[in-house]
Formats: sequence, structure tokens, C-alpha cells
Amino acid sequence: MGREASAHRIDRDIETLAGPDYTVSDEAIRRYAYTDAYRNTLAYFTRELEELGFEVEQDPVGTLVARNRPKGEPVFGIGSHCDSNRNGGKYDGTMGVVTALEVCRLNAERGLDLPLQLISFLEEEGSGFGQMLLGSRIIAQRVTEEDLRERFLAIDDGRSFWEHAADAGYAPDRWQECAHVLDDLTGWIEMHIEQARVLQDTGNRIGLVTAIAGYVHADVIVHGRGDHAGATPMDFRLDPTLTLADTIVALEGMARAVGQGTVGTVGEIEVDPGLINAIAARVRFSLDIRGPVEDAYKGVAREIAAFAEKAADARGMSAEYRERQSIPPTPMDDRIVAALEAATKATGEPYMRMHSGAAHDTMCVADRIPTAMVFVPCVEGISHHPAEDADPADAALAAGIILDAIQTLT
Amino acid sequence: MGREASAHRIDRDIETLAGPDYTVSDEAIRRYAYTDAYRNTLAYFTRELEELGFEVEQDPVGTLVARNRPKGEPVFGIGSHCDSNRNGGKYDGTMGVVTALEVCRLNAERGLDLPLQLISFLEEEGSGFGQMLLGSRIIAQRVTEEDLRERFLAIDDGRSFWEHAADAGYAPDRWQECAHVLDDLTGWIEMHIEQARVLQDTGNRIGLVTAIAGYVHADVIVHGRGDHAGATPMDFRLDPTLTLADTIVALEGMARAVGQGTVGTVGEIEVDPGLINAIAARVRFSLDIRGPVEDAYKGVAREIAAFAEKAADARGMSAEYRERQSIPPTPMDDRIVAALEAATKATGEPYMRMHSGAAHDTMCVADRIPTAMVFVPCVEGISHHPAEDADPADAALAAGIILDAIQTLT
Repeated sequence: MGREASAHRIDRDIETLAGPDYTVSDEAIRRYAYTDAYRNTLAYFTRELEELGFEVEQDPVGTLVARNRPKGEPVFGIGSHCDSNRNGGKYDGTMGVVTALEVCRLNAERGLDLPLQLISFLEEEGSGFGQMLLGSRIIAQRVTEEDLRERFLAIDDGRSFWEHAADAGYAPDRWQECAHVLDDLTGWIEMHIEQARVLQDTGNRIGLVTAIAGYVHADVIVHGRGDHAGATPMDFRLDPTLTLADTIVALEGMARAVGQGTVGTVGEIEVDPGLINAIAARVRFSLDIRGPVEDAYKGVAREIAAFAEKAADARGMSAEYRERQSIPPTPMDDRIVAALEAATKATGEPYMRMHSGAAHDTMCVADRIPTAMVFVPCVEGISHHPAEDADPADAALAAGIILDAIQTLT
Repeated sequence: MGREASAHRIDRDIETLAGPDYTVSDEAIRRYAYTDAYRNTLAYFTRELEELGFEVEQDPVGTLVARNRPKGEPVFGIGSHCDSNRNGGKYDGTMGVVTALEVCRLNAERGLDLPLQLISFLEEEGSGFGQMLLGSRIIAQRVTEEDLRERFLAIDDGRSFWEHAADAGYAPDRWQECAHVLDDLTGWIEMHIEQARVLQDTGNRIGLVTAIAGYVHADVIVHGRGDHAGATPMDFRLDPTLTLADTIVALEGMARAVGQGTVGTVGEIEVDPGLINAIAARVRFSLDIRGPVEDAYKGVAREIAAFAEKAADARGMSAEYRERQSIPPTPMDDRIVAALEAATKATGEPYMRMHSGAAHDTMCVADRIPTAMVFVPCVEGISHHPAEDADPADAALAAGIILDAIQTLT
């Protein structure tokens, strides 16, 4: 099967790209657009792919595109991103590109000559300009010229994306041409570490993604009354932390009740004034409500908004629900998922169908192209952290599965 | 009755001491030890009291002591503090000293010649050195020389209390002599604004304090597991915000159930990492549990510590309870409270017996002397804020009551 050789090559790629030339920090993998570390990473993939006979180029803002057919001929897309979180690990994104590279190697080694296009997207993590999925959103034309020229500013120096891209030798004024990256694709498969613990805890080596969750991000602000914690009897209080507590408990219940992969999280809590001896005047807390089934998670969002208002009112206070952002779910393509499932079954390795709770570049590709994703386990679900860990053997397994699936699809 | 004249004088004192010579800030009353604003305030009281024939001095660190009898003769003590919170109002503390001054005036005006000693304590609010009740704790010898020399550092410049006191012309090396301030007292009454809304909301003009609450300050730390909020299904979570929520709700129930003036508050909540899309790894929250009945509030503290540990455990997590500080309640003297109650009844004005949830210098006086406190309403319970407001007419009422009570007590 050669899977051991694959694992060895994947491991070598990953470890090479964790070296000092490929990260801005020596305490974490920190790699983002237009840094030398990022440029070196693209150069590494370029060399490896050119050795396989691929023609490698970059789109007008720096997304890497490599193909083994001339432009205009249909190709099947594979890849991920090779930028990292600022406090990142070796695997998030990069292992997906490395695995796509391994698919290209196996394609050559086995003499299959399947038509392939590898993409390594720019700025998935937003470490450069605070904008997640930036490269794939540019390709999907989900940004405006004003965003690129004025709104998206570098975290490091506050200068615009536009200036940085131009200084790095790219042509941001041709950003609309980035859409052509997807022109010849007949399908798309991205491999990624799971970033959660489901595969590990269920003992599965492969996750076949059937949908990427949509989500609602919102805040609830509860207006109570700031009073002296010692001097104010229980009956004289309007304490907004009680509505916070009621809502946290209710959200868990609602998410579980509606099921269908729906999750709800209170991740930020801000207490004003936040002193041990003061009853809070005001509490703000965030809501992250997601799932692959829009009716289900949006129902929870509506229900919890109404609940918080009612719960505050029942205690003589008021609560406001403010939506920050809402993104619909992205269903994966049944035919590609089925091909992946058949290929996975053939290996006899344990796998599961699942949805992705995290966002991925594939969401933007799915606007135009039939897509799917393959997850591999990561240890303890840790990602976006130097402690991130994953097994190259799982990635090698995924590479074989992806190649087999593409073979049946093209 | 002359109560209108009293209110007028009290109002004049309060407004004078809210002038630019008496505060470090022009946005709030900000007055603390060894500033010109503080020195001017002591000078104001000194002049007013010397006019009444009082002998005025300051103890070795700057507590103002004024008496109308020679040292060694028994006197009845009245007063409060005239330093303020850094973002303070005109009334907290200062109105108590002003009212004590008015008691001295009435004593002269009515030709009663009761033996009185007025005290204005140093640094009740801790605005200078971050140490609450500092002057009265020095008098009660509840500090060490090391505290004064090395540990208590100025918020403004980090230099020690010792250095600041010496630079201001005081004799911190004689701090142990401060204990003599209380030597001749036969009793002590402090008037203070309530700092809560009970008097206002119940329509009472006078609160007769029967005890100052003791308290437990503690933290609970819940150890969960930080995971991706989107990618981690509900059944795979160890979310410490749920234990936070359970504990907030339980604390309210316990405080109400045990009654007897017990209150419980979660005022600080710290979520780590505190991101909208991350399940918290760890939550810390503070507990402020108080009451006039030690068994009652300490029972709640023990119960909630056990509850939090159990609640965390029930969800597969762990919780630690860490006590920061515990101070016992201070009962007031029955005889003085009874004298105040008789004097209040004679006025026909609405009053109530109550406890103080906030700490006061009287806690330190009570170590050696029979004490009581009188509260007057403050608007909306607001204190420690420029919006602090109280009615000089209520203070005038309190001055008359205190004088009448002292007359029956001496």
C-alpha cells in the first residue's frame, strides 16, 4: 500500500515546515501572508510540486495554485491553507496542504496521472490582517475593493492589505481575477485536522464531513442595578449575574433538546464593574450557536434571545440580544462524500460521518464547486496552540482515500 | 427645635468641603491622607471646633481628635472619617464628621456642656495606600510596624505609608501611641450615609445599626477543558461556565433560605480564554458572603464551597474554593442603641433597626468601647461616586438624636 512511505514523507514535510525558516516566532508556528516565513513555505511547496511536473503559480494576491494540466482543462481540486494562527501548531492547515502534496506524489508514483490542482489558500487564520478565510473570500468575491484597500489592516503595523500585497510584489488591483482559481475545478476535497476530540474519543481515524456548520454570533446585555454587595439585602437587588446564570443553563438545555449537531456556548463574560464587593450593574455575555441544520440552531438563537429577555424581566431587569454575525451552513456534495466513504470502507479503517463545527476555506469553494472535507484526529482536540499534535499515519491514510475517491470521480 | 438651622449649617459645611481646595480632582471628591486637600479639610474642622472651645490635636499619624475636656476625663466619642473614595461624593464619611461637629455646636448652643470627643479617622477608604480603615486599625493596633514601614505603599508613587507620614510632619515611629485616642471614651456613635437603598425604599429617615456585618471573601476556580466552541459536540464538553451558573443560582437560594440579613454576591467573573468561539478552560469567580449573624453567613460560605465542588464534579470537572479574607461581625452596644432608639422615637420620625452591610471605622472602635451607628438615607443607595446624594435635613435629625442619646448616657 505504501502508506508507511506516505506517512514518512508527510512527517518530513511537516517537520521541515516547523523549522526556523518557516515561522516568525520560535515559541509557536506563526506564519502569515507576506512574511519571509510564509514566502519560504510557498517556495517549499513550489519546489516539491514542480518536481512532480506541476505548473505552479500564485494568484494576484498570493494564493498558491499548482496543476498538472494546462489551464482550461478540467482538474480536481485538493488543498488547504499553510498560514497559521499567531500562537499556532504544525498541523492546522499545513497538514492539509502537505497531504494534498502527498496525493500528487501518489498520483505520480502509481502512474495514475489524474488531473489535479493543488491550492494553498492565503490568510485562512486571519493572523496577518484579522480577517479569516481572506484568500478564499477574495476568490469567492465575498469582499469589496474598499475592504482590501482600506478596511483590512495589518495587525503588525496598521497598514492596509492592499499596500502589503503590493509591497510584496503582488497585484491587488487585479483581485477580481482571483475568482479564476476555481474555473477548471470539477470538485474539491480539503483535508484538515478535526480541531476537536470527537475522532480521538470515538476511536475513528477518518471523519467524512457532510456539512460545515453555520452559526449565529450574538451578545446578550443584561441591565441590572449596581449596588453595594454588603449593604443591599437580597430583596432589594437587581443582580444581572442571575440572568446570566439562568441563560447559561437554558442554552445548554436548548442545544441538547434540539440536537442535530447543534451546540451553544457562552465564551465571553464581562461584568461591570466587576468588583468582589459590588453587585454588577450590567453583564454582557457572548453566544456562539452553531450547527449543520440551520432551522435547528437558528431556532435555539431565537429561543435563547426570548428566554434571556423574559428571565431578566422576571427579576425586574431588562436584557437585549444583539446579533453580531450569522453565516449559513455549507452542505458538502453527496457524490463526493459517497466516493470518499467507499474509498474509506475499502481500507477497513474506522471512520465516521460528521459535520465540521469550525469554518474552513471549503465554505468559499462550495459557492461554485462540489466539495467535501476529510478530517483526521488531533490529540485532545487541541489546535491553535504549539501543543497541537496529529499523526502523519492518519494523514497518509487520508491521502490514499482522497486519491482513490478522485479516481472514481474523474 | 432648631433642626432647620442645623440642616443649614450641615449643608454649608458639606458644600464648603466640596470646593476646589478640598479635593484633588475636579470631577469627583478625591481626598486622601497627606494631600493638601486633606490637610485643608482637617484645618477646616480644627477652626470650627476651636471656635466651640475644643482642644484639637492629631494623633501621631494624622487622625484628628478634638475634646472639650482635658485628657484623662471621660468623654463620649462621635465622628467618622473625612477622606473619600478616589471617585467619591460629598457625603460618605464627611457627612458623619460634619454631623458630629453639629452635635458639638448644638451642645454649646443648648448650654448642655456634655463631655465630647470628636474623631475624624485617617484613610477609611484606602484611597492613599489601598488599605481600608487604616487610621482606625492603627488605633486598634490591628497592623504591624512592618505593614506601616514596608507593606502599605502609596497608590500614587509606591512609597511607603511610613515615608509619606514622616514627610507630612507626622511621627509614624510613635504609631503605637495612637491607641490612646480611645482611652477616655465612655461610648462612641458614628453617623454615616447608608450606602444602600433600604432606608429610601422603606421611607425611613433614620437607621439604628444593631451590628456591622462580618463577611467571607473567597474565590471559586472551576477547571473545565478549553475546546473549540463550534467543533465540540455538547456531550464532549467540560464547560466550567455551567458550574458558574449553577453556583450563582445556588448562592442566591442559600442566602435567602438562611435569612437573618445574610447576603451573597458574585461580583467578579473571569473566563479563560474568554473568546466567543472557545469553550472556557477555566472560570474564576468571587464570592462576597456577609451578614450580622456569623453562623448564618459562614454556613452559607461552607455550603456554597461544597456545592461548587459537587456541581463541578457532577459534570466531570473540579472546583476549588479559596478564602481570601474573613472578618467577624461587630455587634453594637445594646444600651447605646436603646438610648438612640428612645431619642429617635421622641422625634416621631420614621426609623428602623438594621445592620450595616458595609465596613466602618466603628468596627475598630468596638474592640474597646461600647459603640453604635446611625444611618441616614442616600439617594438610590449610590455611594463611592460623584452622584452620591443625601439630605442635610436627615443629618440634622441625626445630630439631634445623637445629642439627646448622649445626654441620657452620660
